[in-house]
Amino acid sequence: MTRLEKLREIMRAQSVDLVALGPGAHLAWLTGVRPHGDERPLLFCVSGTGAAFLMPVLEAESARQQTDLPFHTWSDDEGPQAALAAVLVGLGAEKAQSIALDETMRADFAGLVQDALPKARRQFGASTVGALRMRKDAAEYAALKKAALVDDIAMRRAWSDMRAGMTEREVADLVRDSFKAQGGSVLFSIIGTGGNGAFPHHHTGDTVLKPGDAVVMDIGGNVDGYPSDMTRMAVIGTPPEGYLEVHAVVEAAVQAALATAKPGVKAHEVDDAARGVIEAAGYGDYFTHRTGHGLGVEIHEPPYITATAQVVLEEGMVFSIEPGIYLPDRFGIRLEDIVILRADGAEILSELPRDLQIIAEA
Amino acid sequence: MTRLEKLREIMRAQSVDLVALGPGAHLAWLTGVRPHGDERPLLFCVSGTGAAFLMPVLEAESARQQTDLPFHTWSDDEGPQAALAAVLVGLGAEKAQSIALDETMRADFAGLVQDALPKARRQFGASTVGALRMRKDAAEYAALKKAALVDDIAMRRAWSDMRAGMTEREVADLVRDSFKAQGGSVLFSIIGTGGNGAFPHHHTGDTVLKPGDAVVMDIGGNVDGYPSDMTRMAVIGTPPEGYLEVHAVVEAAVQAALATAKPGVKAHEVDDAARGVIEAAGYGDYFTHRTGHGLGVEIHEPPYITATAQVVLEEGMVFSIEPGIYLPDRFGIRLEDIVILRADGAEILSELPRDLQIIAEA
Repeated sequence: MTRLEKLREIMRAQSVDLVALGPGAHLAWLTGVRPHGDERPLLFCVSGTGAAFLMPVLEAESARQQTDLPFHTWSDDEGPQAALAAVLVGLGAEKAQSIALDETMRADFAGLVQDALPKARRQFGASTVGALRMRKDAAEYAALKKAALVDDIAMRRAWSDMRAGMTEREVADLVRDSFKAQGGSVLFSIIGTGGNGAFPHHHTGDTVLKPGDAVVMDIGGNVDGYPSDMTRMAVIGTPPEGYLEVHAVVEAAVQAALATAKPGVKAHEVDDAARGVIEAAGYGDYFTHRTGHGLGVEIHEPPYITATAQVVLEEGMVFSIEPGIYLPDRFGIRLEDIVILRADGAEILSELPRDLQIIAEA
Repeated sequence: MTRLEKLREIMRAQSVDLVALGPGAHLAWLTGVRPHGDERPLLFCVSGTGAAFLMPVLEAESARQQTDLPFHTWSDDEGPQAALAAVLVGLGAEKAQSIALDETMRADFAGLVQDALPKARRQFGASTVGALRMRKDAAEYAALKKAALVDDIAMRRAWSDMRAGMTEREVADLVRDSFKAQGGSVLFSIIGTGGNGAFPHHHTGDTVLKPGDAVVMDIGGNVDGYPSDMTRMAVIGTPPEGYLEVHAVVEAAVQAALATAKPGVKAHEVDDAARGVIEAAGYGDYFTHRTGHGLGVEIHEPPYITATAQVVLEEGMVFSIEPGIYLPDRFGIRLEDIVILRADGAEILSELPRDLQIIAEA
């Protein structure tokens, strides 16, 4: 069954008459088309009987090389309304009562569809295309596994060349160069040394790595369209006071989440497991984020592993397990692996141990 | 008057009770805050009496370093609804009847606001913040001028080092390196050689530049947060048959648009002027896009210079003039300059002539 057929199946099950997607991950996953996205409305619309693009004429030639699906084009002087109406009539969706909109697309693209179908009930595509994307097939697993191994090498490269006196940014450059040398590209690298590590989304900057610093290293790259995302911890010389105890708590939280993550459990149970370990150790107030997020054509996608997530985990789902403890002005510790759920539990994609990496002081 | 005060003035004039912005250009222009944007709803809300952020707790520390404006934070396990309700009550906007939503933000961010205010009339921020952004102040002019001069140097660098046998991508690398060496970064570079130039949004690739090719070079960079965007034409050795005649038509179209662009005229009149020249020369079917777009914190922003644009141009507006003629399988020609409107007409930001550049064949 093609992905489009699978989408129609889920549309029937949810009584959704029309799915409308903008340029982005849902569209890339569903059709393989990755059009240039700008302020010109570009939509892919799917009904029970057909599928067609609303396409700015400027993008038509380039997009045509990627797909044989039908186009309705519009030019800058016409505007998109008439072409969208033609798309809807062509799909038999001009009276759609229930629509699923790409939650990531521009608000005005969504507004265009809503204005064309003012009486339709609106839901977001996370419940249709997003639901399908959660379960990865063998080709997607292979792509994510490859990306994870490239990330392992980038992390090892950074460990082998980083040292006291370098800035966070210089460490990030090592990571970037390694991704590039392997034919990939860096998507992000959060290098947070010392107190900076206590901000989970720290912006890598000019802070110099000093002896005694703990360094959060959260790096991800893109390989053939699929991302990686991994966090490891390093210390420059001797760990700061209290570090090793807290590191052991985070590692125990990871292991608890790994042991819990199985088909049939709810996503929040995985969060509960990690959070429970951290709360029991007295650090509950310092674990300020969710335990994980899905990963596929996007770096963040469903399923989200939060304290309230009710989604039932299934075989083939891929997500991060990344609890952390952040002690203001002291250090932060996060350990992150990406897993795929197998029938019997979680398989870690990375082959790099989560052990603390000691960097020589000089 | 601050930008926030100017926004309140336009909100009063349009009877808009609430403006809601996501991470992006509107927010950066209005507040200077450039938060990390992901799937977690992050909004900046402005009412007649107040302004506050709906902020994921994970971003709060980092964003706090950029602004003193009030925050209502939400955590992954709480979700954003209650915090948004608190934002609206704090702003006296819990019964807003007319809202302006950032047209560029994620559809689900817009959906969150619409669900909180289901009876409010919706318009998009292009009519409020976007309208203000069209008229540039002296600091913005200086930033755009600087970016344009950096672009001039990048173009000259490419011209001096490019030659037959290089790929489009290698030419793009020259451009990228020049932006970087000047402290900026490349935003895009469309290098379209030979028949590739006939696609206005060609994806720069591995096509080799051959003697007799005309090369469309549309390059833009970022310098201190402001973009550049310029298109020039080069040929490798001898121009292809018919090239010089068509080049002269495009140049005449640019000059007609430049002569028309004055405060008080409507945007479509500028498009009419350029399009009229091209149609009169018999190439109307081959000018497949609008004449231009605004440029500011974003590379594409209002005013758009299209055949139907009714916006009245004002002093201080900045936009591109970039007519083109695209002859399938032969070549494309586009010439583009960014202008700022002065009381007496259009001032071009670039100081690089639009003359055809001849590249030696060997």
